[in-house]
Amino acid sequence: MPDRLKNIKLKIEYDGTNYAGWQRQKNAISIQEVLEDVLYRMTNQRTTLTAAGRTDSGVHAKGQTANFYTDSTIPADRFCYAFNALLPDDVRVVESCEVAHDFHSRFTAIGKWYRYSIVYHPHGIAIGRHYYHHVPFSLDVEAMIIAAKHFEGTHDFCGFMSTGSRIKNTVRNLDRISMEGQPPFLHVDLYGGGFLYNMVRIVVGTLIEVGAKRINPDDLTRIISSRDRNMAGPTAPAHGLCLMEVYYQKQSELSLDNE
Amino acid sequence: MPDRLKNIKLKIEYDGTNYAGWQRQKNAISIQEVLEDVLYRMTNQRTTLTAAGRTDSGVHAKGQTANFYTDSTIPADRFCYAFNALLPDDVRVVESCEVAHDFHSRFTAIGKWYRYSIVYHPHGIAIGRHYYHHVPFSLDVEAMIIAAKHFEGTHDFCGFMSTGSRIKNTVRNLDRISMEGQPPFLHVDLYGGGFLYNMVRIVVGTLIEVGAKRINPDDLTRIISSRDRNMAGPTAPAHGLCLMEVYYQKQSELSLDNE
Repeated sequence: MPDRLKNIKLKIEYDGTNYAGWQRQKNAISIQEVLEDVLYRMTNQRTTLTAAGRTDSGVHAKGQTANFYTDSTIPADRFCYAFNALLPDDVRVVESCEVAHDFHSRFTAIGKWYRYSIVYHPHGIAIGRHYYHHVPFSLDVEAMIIAAKHFEGTHDFCGFMSTGSRIKNTVRNLDRISMEGQPPFLHVDLYGGGFLYNMVRIVVGTLIEVGAKRINPDDLTRIISSRDRNMAGPTAPAHGLCLMEVYYQKQSELSLDNE
Repeated sequence: MPDRLKNIKLKIEYDGTNYAGWQRQKNAISIQEVLEDVLYRMTNQRTTLTAAGRTDSGVHAKGQTANFYTDSTIPADRFCYAFNALLPDDVRVVESCEVAHDFHSRFTAIGKWYRYSIVYHPHGIAIGRHYYHHVPFSLDVEAMIIAAKHFEGTHDFCGFMSTGSRIKNTVRNLDRISMEGQPPFLHVDLYGGGFLYNMVRIVVGTLIEVGAKRINPDDLTRIISSRDRNMAGPTAPAHGLCLMEVYYQKQSELSLDNE
C-alpha cells in the first residue's frame, strides 16, 4: 500500500441474526458488505475491509476487528461516528484509530476470545433468544468444567473442525476455557491463539453432550486424540456464539495519533 | 363462571418488539391474540385471557400474569408445555398453575415491578438493542438517584400520565425506585401498587432529563405537585420497558393442586 494511505483499525459490534456472516457473498447480505458500502458513501472510494475472523451466518461480535487503508481526511478517531451515522442499528463501530502500516487484523492477531451462551431450561427464553442457544434439559455444569480442562493446551484439533476445510496444520493452542453465569444461563468463554473452522461450536457441542451426561468427561482425552470428527459432539448452533475480543501485540495497537 | 371450570394462572415472558402490545386489536398482532389462538388450538374453545397489565406496543415482559377459565383436561402445570409447543419463539409461558376461582390477574394484583433499561454511550449497542433505550450522552446517575427519591411514596401522579386516559383518581403509591447496572448500562427498577398510563415511561423520561442535567433533582417536588404533564420530561420509548413481576397475596397464589 502506498505510504500516503493511513491504516485505520475498527472495533465492531454486530448482531449477526440478519446477516450471512462477515464475508461478502452473492445473494445474501454480509457484515463486510454493509460496512464497505457505508465506507464508500463516506469516502467515495471502493475500499476493502480485512477482518480478524470471518464469522459465520448468525454469529455475533462485540469485538470484531477490521482494518482498511484510506487517504480520507476524516480523522481516525472520528470514523466510528461517521460509520454509525450511516450504518443499520444492528452494526456499530465502537472504536476507530490509526495503526502502524503493517498492522493486519488477521495476520498480526495473537489471540481471540469467543463466548458461547447457553440457556438450559424447559421453556427457553423470549427476551434475548437470538443470543442464547436453548437447551431444553438440565446441564451438569461441574462435569462440563472438568471436561473443558482436557481441551486446554496445545492439541491437534482435527476432530473439532467441520469437514470441507482445506487447512493442513490442525494443531491449535486453546489457552483457557472458563464458565460463568447464574443458572439457567451459562457462558462458555474460550481463549486461544487460533481456531479451526467451527472449532468453538464443536468444542461447545461436545461440552453440552458432557453436561447432558451422554459423554463422560474422562473420555475427552480419547476423543481429542482420535482426531475423528464423528467422536466429538454436534456443532452447536451459530446464534449462541459471539466474538468478544481480538488480541494484538501492544506495539501494533499503538495509535499513530499519539506519536 | 360455572364451578366446573378451573381458573388457570400463567406467567408469561415476551419480546414485545414485533407486537402491537398485549391487548387484542384489529389490523395488528397482539400478545393476547397469539396466546388465545394457541389456547383455541389446544382446547377447541374460544377463551379470553385476562392480563395484569396491558403493556403497550414494543414493551417487553418477563413476568406478565394472565388467567383464564377452562374445563380442559390438560393438567394445570402442563399448560406451559402445551403452550410453548405451539407459540412463536418470542412468547413463552414460563409457569402455569391452578388458582382459586376468584383470582383475577388485574384486580387481585397488589403490586408490580417494572424495569426500564438504558444504555448511555455515544455509539449505542447492536446486541440487545431491542431491550435498551439508547441515550447518546453521559448520564449523571448520582443526580438521578437523588431525583428518584422524590417519586417514592404516595403522590398525585396526574402530571405523569399520558393524555387521553379517562381515569379520575390519579393518586398512586410508588414504593421504591432503585438503580443498578455497570456503566454504560443502567436499569431503573420501579415497584408500586399501581401505575397510570405511561407513568413508568414518563417518570424515567424525567429522570433521564435529570441525568442529562436539564432538570435539577431539587425541582422534582415542584414538578410533581404541579400535576402538569408539560413540566415532566418526555415519555421514554417503549422498548426499554419490561414488566418484570406482578405480585399477589400469598393466598391467591396458592395452587389448588397442592390442596
